[in-house]
Amino acid sequence: MTRPKLLVNHPFDEAVTLTPQATDAHEHGAGAPRRYLGHTHQAYGNMVGPFGGVTAAQALQAVLQHPQRLGEPVSFTVNYASALADGAFMAEARPLRTNRSTQHWLVLLTQTGADGLDATVLSATAVTAVRRSTWSAADAVMPTVPAPPSIARAAIAKRVKWIERYDMRPCAGLMPHTWDGSEADSLTQLWMRDDPPRPLDYLSLTALADVFYPRVWRRRALMTPVGTVSMTVYYHAGAAELAATGEDYLLGQARSQSFFNGFFDQSAELWNEAGQLLATTHQIVYYKE
Amino acid sequence: MTRPKLLVNHPFDEAVTLTPQATDAHEHGAGAPRRYLGHTHQAYGNMVGPFGGVTAAQALQAVLQHPQRLGEPVSFTVNYASALADGAFMAEARPLRTNRSTQHWLVLLTQTGADGLDATVLSATAVTAVRRSTWSAADAVMPTVPAPPSIARAAIAKRVKWIERYDMRPCAGLMPHTWDGSEADSLTQLWMRDDPPRPLDYLSLTALADVFYPRVWRRRALMTPVGTVSMTVYYHAGAAELAATGEDYLLGQARSQSFFNGFFDQSAELWNEAGQLLATTHQIVYYKE
Repeated sequence: MTRPKLLVNHPFDEAVTLTPQATDAHEHGAGAPRRYLGHTHQAYGNMVGPFGGVTAAQALQAVLQHPQRLGEPVSFTVNYASALADGAFMAEARPLRTNRSTQHWLVLLTQTGADGLDATVLSATAVTAVRRSTWSAADAVMPTVPAPPSIARAAIAKRVKWIERYDMRPCAGLMPHTWDGSEADSLTQLWMRDDPPRPLDYLSLTALADVFYPRVWRRRALMTPVGTVSMTVYYHAGAAELAATGEDYLLGQARSQSFFNGFFDQSAELWNEAGQLLATTHQIVYYKE
Repeated sequence: MTRPKLLVNHPFDEAVTLTPQATDAHEHGAGAPRRYLGHTHQAYGNMVGPFGGVTAAQALQAVLQHPQRLGEPVSFTVNYASALADGAFMAEARPLRTNRSTQHWLVLLTQTGADGLDATVLSATAVTAVRRSTWSAADAVMPTVPAPPSIARAAIAKRVKWIERYDMRPCAGLMPHTWDGSEADSLTQLWMRDDPPRPLDYLSLTALADVFYPRVWRRRALMTPVGTVSMTVYYHAGAAELAATGEDYLLGQARSQSFFNGFFDQSAELWNEAGQLLATTHQIVYYKE
């Protein structure tokens, strides 16, 4: 599955490019924050602001680029405080605690509003760790579905740009054909990968965790306004396993457990084509009615 | 299930008591942090430091007591950066962003080390919201198990204090009788409530989300050292539903999906006796080997 290098940057790599900002002299010790300038990317635009999966990847990138970072991501939680305005944002990554083999992080994304004041648009916490080889086992059962080439690519809704950046091949739980309010289960299974294909890493895996369309739309066949409030990703693979996955498709499976007074949850799993469980992810999502 | 008021405080109420600290004059505006002094409680001692469920409740309490708090908890993520030392800690709660009906929070717990320096022992983020009544549905299926009175209370391990503060009645997936390394599934189902009984609220529900013994012990019948790294709780009930639950038992169900090179996940659901799904919760846990 290796391909010739493209001569232009992948839009995802453009999107997760952060520019380090100058730091004060007193901010070079242990626990010092680093600030990075980033920009929303038009290729990943959503209905309001950018696709949240890419915003999450941008926040994780601030951790990965920090010169004091120890190990690889184990856990990442991102809270969406506001839709980002198209344009620049500042990302600040701060190591809150560095232990022998684990490290705890805080990331804050801010944007300057029309009033000239900086406002928090996203907060995130991450745990990174130097993993050691141990007894391991994956208990989540990968569903049996047809191989990606045998499934037609999903039709692309013209309304949002970011959908074009993912090759999605739904196996079960497609977007409802008719929005008639007929209730169903909330399960969706699909193959997915970047378009154009791009070797998997922690950043793209994080974005892929947010690819599923809103469960409440599936559950109710009703297109109520929604917005993810908080998403957590647990990484069950090291950088080597992600690199070995390369440009293969991932099989994603997502469903909800509760819809209650304006907020529903979503739990999902992501496997590679070889059957390795790479990540489990959970989110809670606002819905209007 | 109402009982006469006890003349002494419940140990859980003692544990989650935080004392507001003086704030600087410039810290009274929007987004101003508040600091609270708290203490670990000997009744909730674990093998090293306190039971993490109560520490999480103490962090959430800092949000609930903040004078600018808007609404009720929807999402809460707590990252355990270090075992707490027995004694005092400082909890700082900061509203990062206040929207019309949602609010985003950062909580940091610090302790002063032997070196005289303050170190972060816990970070947490929370989203609170003013819920509106909407279409609602609980899709998670409550398992059919015997009623709490028909199940014997679990034997109490003498090694840790906090176990005595929970009345646990296991239905499935008990702690292994023999630690012989025989692999099994990772599922546990149990009824649980505070001991002595205490009306349910967001604080005790948060602590109950962390009651399950380590899944890797069940999965492998091997008592490897473990420690929760990060826990997320999604609340699917309002304060009224929690109050209506009162002192009833909760049915908890927990299992893992992946054990990989030193970290495993746990997903769990908590229902009340009336069958309402009150919370779903996820955590990632370090294991040594």
